[in-house]
Formats: sequence, structure tokens, C-alpha cells
Amino acid sequence: MFEAAELGRKLSKKEYKALEPELRERLLVAQTSLREADIPLLILLEGADSACKGEVVNLLNQWFDVRGLLVNGFGPKTDEEARRPRFWRYWRNFPCRGQIGVFYGSWYTGELIKRANRKQEKDEFDSHMQRIEQLETLLARDGALILKFWLHTGEDELTARLKKVLAEKEDDWVGAQADRQVLDNYRRFIKAAERAVRLTDQTMSPWHLIEAANHRYRDVTLVRTIIDAVNRRTQEIAGADRQRRKTDKNSAGEVPMPSEAAIKVLDQVDLTLDIDKKSYEARLEKLKHQLNRLSWKAYHRDISMILVFEGWDAAGKGGAIRRIMQSVDARIARVISISAPTDEEKSHHYLWRFWRHIPLAGRHTIYDRSWYGRVLVERVEGFAREEEWRRAYSEINDFEEQIGSRGNVLLKFWLHVDKDEQLARFEARENTPYKNYKITEEDWRNRERWEDYENAVHEMVVKTSTDFAPWTIVPANSKHYARIMVLETICEQLKKALDKADTKRGGK
Amino acid sequence: MFEAAELGRKLSKKEYKALEPELRERLLVAQTSLREADIPLLILLEGADSACKGEVVNLLNQWFDVRGLLVNGFGPKTDEEARRPRFWRYWRNFPCRGQIGVFYGSWYTGELIKRANRKQEKDEFDSHMQRIEQLETLLARDGALILKFWLHTGEDELTARLKKVLAEKEDDWVGAQADRQVLDNYRRFIKAAERAVRLTDQTMSPWHLIEAANHRYRDVTLVRTIIDAVNRRTQEIAGADRQRRKTDKNSAGEVPMPSEAAIKVLDQVDLTLDIDKKSYEARLEKLKHQLNRLSWKAYHRDISMILVFEGWDAAGKGGAIRRIMQSVDARIARVISISAPTDEEKSHHYLWRFWRHIPLAGRHTIYDRSWYGRVLVERVEGFAREEEWRRAYSEINDFEEQIGSRGNVLLKFWLHVDKDEQLARFEARENTPYKNYKITEEDWRNRERWEDYENAVHEMVVKTSTDFAPWTIVPANSKHYARIMVLETICEQLKKALDKADTKRGGK
Repeated sequence: MFEAAELGRKLSKKEYKALEPELRERLLVAQTSLREADIPLLILLEGADSACKGEVVNLLNQWFDVRGLLVNGFGPKTDEEARRPRFWRYWRNFPCRGQIGVFYGSWYTGELIKRANRKQEKDEFDSHMQRIEQLETLLARDGALILKFWLHTGEDELTARLKKVLAEKEDDWVGAQADRQVLDNYRRFIKAAERAVRLTDQTMSPWHLIEAANHRYRDVTLVRTIIDAVNRRTQEIAGADRQRRKTDKNSAGEVPMPSEAAIKVLDQVDLTLDIDKKSYEARLEKLKHQLNRLSWKAYHRDISMILVFEGWDAAGKGGAIRRIMQSVDARIARVISISAPTDEEKSHHYLWRFWRHIPLAGRHTIYDRSWYGRVLVERVEGFAREEEWRRAYSEINDFEEQIGSRGNVLLKFWLHVDKDEQLARFEARENTPYKNYKITEEDWRNRERWEDYENAVHEMVVKTSTDFAPWTIVPANSKHYARIMVLETICEQLKKALDKADTKRGGK
Repeated sequence: MFEAAELGRKLSKKEYKALEPELRERLLVAQTSLREADIPLLILLEGADSACKGEVVNLLNQWFDVRGLLVNGFGPKTDEEARRPRFWRYWRNFPCRGQIGVFYGSWYTGELIKRANRKQEKDEFDSHMQRIEQLETLLARDGALILKFWLHTGEDELTARLKKVLAEKEDDWVGAQADRQVLDNYRRFIKAAERAVRLTDQTMSPWHLIEAANHRYRDVTLVRTIIDAVNRRTQEIAGADRQRRKTDKNSAGEVPMPSEAAIKVLDQVDLTLDIDKKSYEARLEKLKHQLNRLSWKAYHRDISMILVFEGWDAAGKGGAIRRIMQSVDARIARVISISAPTDEEKSHHYLWRFWRHIPLAGRHTIYDRSWYGRVLVERVEGFAREEEWRRAYSEINDFEEQIGSRGNVLLKFWLHVDKDEQLARFEARENTPYKNYKITEEDWRNRERWEDYENAVHEMVVKTSTDFAPWTIVPANSKHYARIMVLETICEQLKKALDKADTKRGGK
């Protein structure tokens, strides 16, 4: 595929000089229109020749307005990166809306080199490419413009260039090491790259192959590609806006909810389940003790526990979480209580603010409300458009697969009470001075939309119950029963995960 | 000091029950008033007994509204933390305005344990305490409310409690290790703590000694202390606001500038300095090559280079920075271009947004404008109050001492042109289509306040030129001359730092 691109295309110094002023101006205009349309732009630079990528970075640094431009180069992983899911290091560097992120090397680089050096099987490589495709889709659907450039240099030319570079640089130059690795396995590297391009060349995040032998031709082509892509996108958006304004007149903006009264997940919950006080207290003490031991054990084995709590208002999430935190040491666990996003958070993909708080391997995080807000409150209240919350199910599944990997335990609890019980608790809250901050107008409003929420919960549970991240529906009319069930589930699953880790270790 | 606090104070279950509802309510009211007044609250929990600190954390988790409350427990440093200045791990966890950060262990803990285990000399300990005092002063002056609690447990009681705890917990319980360390050296630990309290008990961040033997007494006292401190602060603020409104009527809000025409730093710059084109090109190539080698060498020795660029509009900062980035690999260096802060940044101390970007050891960061905005544009335009920018000098010096530590190279450049040269460049920018985005109304406005800026620059250079972070004033009427001078200075200083590191290494 790449060799076909070796056409020896060139641009003379004179031609280049004639083009430069207009191109630079158009590039700046494009950058402004990105900013105005709040579109994040990701520019990925890949290729065999790292010096060539460096030159392109310098060009972009010079031609773009540097405000809102951030170049990301990825060296070896830090331990904070290594001890979190694979994509965490990229998530933390994604540009926010209206800004530009240049990636000098990206999520492809490491995989290509591993594959070239026979350190990765084809299946594993392919499955990484699939993950990458999911990641790019997720960003693109959220409005990001992704431009992936393969800067192609032929083998002979590369050999010559690298020899020259290596002769000039010191031995301890890190770039040299990477380049040498590529050169030693050039054919395998190119083969892997071709495969990567084939597998991940989507409409939403296409690859652009650019012949890099002549740097003037390369630069002009690359800049033109950027300008064209930005212009196309901003025009599309302008068009879509007009379209939406037309449509909005027709639809009342109502969130569609299934009206058929099919049997729902929540209908089948037995809310009469209870436990007497004495058994509760004995069981609670025992479970807290057990959880304490298990959480430390998990800490020492680098296994994280990620707990998600959702449920009706006043269903007892806070109380359940406190029982957990009484068992788990505050030095290795934290509660993230989700409220309104900050503007930095708003200017990223909605999952970004959860990625930020992903714990280190071995640390535990409890989310008091979570990313499920997208398919619950944001859906029901119409804060997210239908296409947005609809695609959230699969985005969440992908996200959870990643954070639940490496033996981590990811559990999700829906605390269920019925409408009468909620009413009783709302009233109790209003009558207890130090509790009435917990009850607001919003809670009463949410209560009015009970059926809509019920439908949303049903769909959420059905679509996001996976083997790596199951939902547990907790009957919570009895707070005691609910707490015991939560603690039991956690202990059970954590124990299972630890046993599995032990077996694996033993088996090796 | 602590023993004097052992008075055996107690609270019965009945007394406690009677107090609880009102206290909880008042605590919530206090939290709301913090939020409304945009005050960040830091609660530090220190003491010999880690179980006791954990209990207090649980209480706070239960009594506070958890939204806007974050508990920070500090385990061993991650490498990202270890490879940055000491306080970076705390900075990244500071609560933003209106929020509460509970610190289960803090910047004191490690020092106390080191000292108790004879791993730290008294002088070193004292100098750490001084740094801590600076840190707390910086936060307090910015409006943070800092409450430091020493939860005191006597030796006998602690021995008994720990024995019980250790018997209950698994051997691999990390808390047990810390507790055992404390118990083994109890007297030395307490002595170190007493010294720490004595050295860092300031009006702005006082210590509160609480007898912890009786947990009900402890909890009630702690919560009351929080409530009182919050109320006092909010009342002070209300009073100060009234005062300010009165004063504002009298003063026109003018920023005071020294009117005497003393000789200023910038007056002495010889702006006629130049270099011919041929020498420039030869020198530039050589310096770029040299800088490339040096930057990799520094990378391998974990030495960071932090460069700050300030200067008149159109003085050529961007061009100088690009010459550096053409020499330093984008994988180990990044340019941070400072523009308006995000709202997350605004809701922290103004230095927080720079702490965020402090590079890992060995990585290089170039700031295109910097924290000096505080004493330049914010001062001249009146965005910062006089007391704010005045204290910034010493805050910046402390900050730079920290980021310049461990052999890092921190260099600051002021690019100086005269008014005529600036005018010529402004006009050239306006006439070059792809450059006129660089020139705005604001630039013309700033130009009108040239003398005010000159005074501000003078004071800045005088007050923040330190041996660990010197200013270099670059005559920049000739862009070529300026670039060469910048590159030469960097190479020279980097080489010096590397030699020093080699000598140190050789000497060991």
C-alpha cells in the first residue's frame, strides 16, 4: 500500500515560497473556525522516520497560533500511566473543544514497534486495533476532528537519512534507539503499519498517506489536508445547524420513552426483603472486618475495586457507601461524589471527567453517582440528545471493559425503593434539620418523572450488564438489608477476583 | 506540650446524643457559607494513632455534605510524584474555592516519621518545616482556611489500642506498619511533632490540639472547632467587604507606580547589539546541535530544563522558542503557551495552573508567558489587587526554588525592544496576512502603558533574580542577536548544571 505512494513527488523551493503565504493564512483561518465551532482537532503523526515527524511538529508550531495548540510526545510510560488502563495517558492529553492536540507518536506507535519486533501476535495486534477504532469513534462521535497522517519514507531513503542522523547525534539519543529498532525490522514495521491503516481507516478518522521524501511537498500536502478537513467539517456543522433548526420546529424536544408496559427489571425486585436488627449488626461487623482484609489484600496485589452507586433519590446510597468507607482505609480508597461538571470537564468528552479519577492499580474508588448520569438524568431531562445517550451504552461498555481489565473488580449497584418508601424518606429528611439539605426541589421534580426514570433504568441495566461489570439491583426499602447485600456482594466478588489472581500466579 | 493536654476529658453517650443534631446542622450551615464565600477549607488530620484519624474521616464523611468534599490519603509516592518537586502531590489535591479537602496525613506525616526514625537531621527537619510554613502562608493569603488538628493519644493508651488493632488486622495491613513505626519510637515521634507544631503554629494556619482518648469528646471538639473557625472567617470577610466598599469610594483604583525616574534595568540594555546574517546562520546551526545533545544528556540524568519567556509584545518570543524546539525533541519537551485560565484554574491559587504543568524529572518545559503575568499584566491592568501582586514576588521565589531544585535548570528571559522597533513590527504584522492574527487591539492598548510596564518589569527583575533562577535581559531589536543570545545562555547554563551533576556523582 505504502510503496504505491512512492511517486517521487516534489515541490521546488520557488513553488513552495509562492504557496506559503496563502497557506499559512488559510491555516490560521481554519484554526479560528475550529475555535468558534468548539471543535477539538487531533493530528496524529506516524511514520518510520522520527526526524521527519519532528520537522512536521516544528512546522505546525510555527504556522498555527500556539495558543490552544499542545504537542504531545510520548516517551516511556510513567508508573502512574502503567498502573492505569492503556488509554489513560492519552485521555489525559486530549485537547478540549476548540483546541488542537498534535500527537507526535500516538496509540499506534507502541503497537507497531511491538509487532515489528515480533513481540506481539497478530490476534493481539488486531484486537488492539479494534480498541483503537472504538476510541477514535468515541471521540469522533463527540465532535472531534481526527486526522491521522502516515508520513511515508521508502526503505533506501530512510536508511540513508538515519545513517546521517545517527552519525550526527550522540549515542544516548533516545530517538536513535527507536529509529534503529524500526530500521532493523523495516519490512515487518511497514507490514504492521499497513495492517493498522487498513483496520482503522474509518470515515470518522481517516488515514492520510503522505510521501515524505521531499519535505516541501510533504508540508504543503499535510497543511492542505488539514485546511480542507477543517473547512469540510465546519461547513457540515453549519448545514446541520440549519437542518436542526428546521427539525426543532417540528419536534417538541420530547425524549422518547417506550410506552408499552412490558415487565421491567425493577418490577421483579422483592422489596419486602428485610433483616432483623440483631442479625444486621452482627453481620455488618463481620462483613466490615472481612472487607477490610480483602481491600488490603487487593491493594497488595495491585487489584483495584471500582464501585458505582446509582439509585433513586433517598434510596440510601450515602449510608451504604459510608459502611464501605468504614471498612476500607482512606489512604487506599476515595469516594468521588459526582455533581455538576467544571468547564474543563464540559469541554471534553463526557467520559473524560471519569477517566481523570481512575485509581492507580491497587487503589479503590467509589463513585457516588457516575457516568450513568448520561443515560439517566441527562436522558430523562433532555440534557443529552437522543443520539448522544443512545451511543453512550456501547461507549460505557467499552470504557468499563478497560477499567475492569487486569483483574480489577468493577461492580455497579442500583439501590431500589418504591414510591411510598421514597415519600416517607423525603418527609423524614424535611423534618430533620441536619438532613434537610439533602432534599431539594429537584428531588421532588425527579419524583414526578418516576416512570420515565424506571424506563431509563430498565434499558440501562439491560444494555450495560456485562460479565466484566455486572449490575446488582439492591432491594433497599430496608436500609439494613440493602447495606448487607452490598457488602456481601463486594466481599464475594473481591474474594473471587483474588482467588483468580492467586490461581494465575500459582499456575505460572 | 502534648502531655499537658492529657486531661482525661470525656463526653457521655447521653451528652453526645443531645449535642449531635444541633452540631450537625451548624456544620452544614458552615459548609454552605464556605461555598457561598468561595473559601477553600483544608482540614489536616495528624496524630500517632492512624485508626483514630480514620474514625474522624468517617465522621466528616457522614456529617458534611459529600458534594465538594474530598478526602486525600497519601500512600507511598508514585514515580510521577517522586519525579517532581516535593509539594506537587499536595498541589494536585488542593481543594478549589468553596470546597473542602480533608488530608488524612499531610505534608507533615513523612517528616515526622523520618525524624522519629532518626532518618533526618534536625536542621533538615527545621528547613522542611520552614517550607511548609511558606506553603501554608501562600494558601492562607489566597483565602484558604487551614485547620490543622493534632489528635493526641497518650503512650499507654496508644500501646493498648494498637495491640488490639494489630491483633485484629492482617499482617499485611499497611496501617499496621506505619503504626508500629510510630509505637517503636513514640517518644521521638512526639518530640518531633511538638517541634513541628511549635515551628508551624501560625495565626494563618494554627494547630488545634485535641485529646483523642474519648472519641465523643474528640469528635465534638473537632467539629466545634471547624464551625467556629468557619464562622469567624465568613464574618471577617463580610466585615472586610464593607470596609473595602468604603475605601473603594475614595481611591480611584489606580495602580501605584513609582514616579521618580530612577535608572531602570531596561534603560541599561544596549539595543544596538546585532550580528551579521552569515555569522548568525553558522552560529545558530552549531548552537542547535549543541542544545540537542545537551537536552538529551539532561534527560538521561533526570535534569529538567524550565524556560520562561516574557517580553514586550512582538519582541520575538515565539521565534526564539521555535529555535529551541527545533533543537529539542518534542517527545521530551513541550511548550506551554499561557492564555486565559480555565474556571478550574481560576478557582485555585494562581500558581496552581503552573504546578499542573511542572515536567517530570528529565523533561523540559518552555513557558511562553508565565506566572510573571501576576506582577506584569495583572498588576498594570489592575486584575490583581496590590496586596496580591506584592506578595507574589516572594511566592514566586519560593515556587521557583522548588522547581529549580535537584539540579534542574530554570532560566528566565525578558526580550527587550524599544518603542520604535515595536511599532515597526506591529505595522509589519498588520501588513502580513498570516501574521496579523498576532496583533490585536490589546497590543495597541498595552503599548500605551509602556512606562507602567517598564516600571513593573524593573521591579520584577530586581525582586525575582535569584541565584537559582536568574533573569536574562535580552536585547532584541535584532531578532538574530536575541536568538543567539538565548541559545547561548541555555547551552551554557545547561552545560554547567550537567558538569555539576557529574562532579557530584564522581564525588560520591
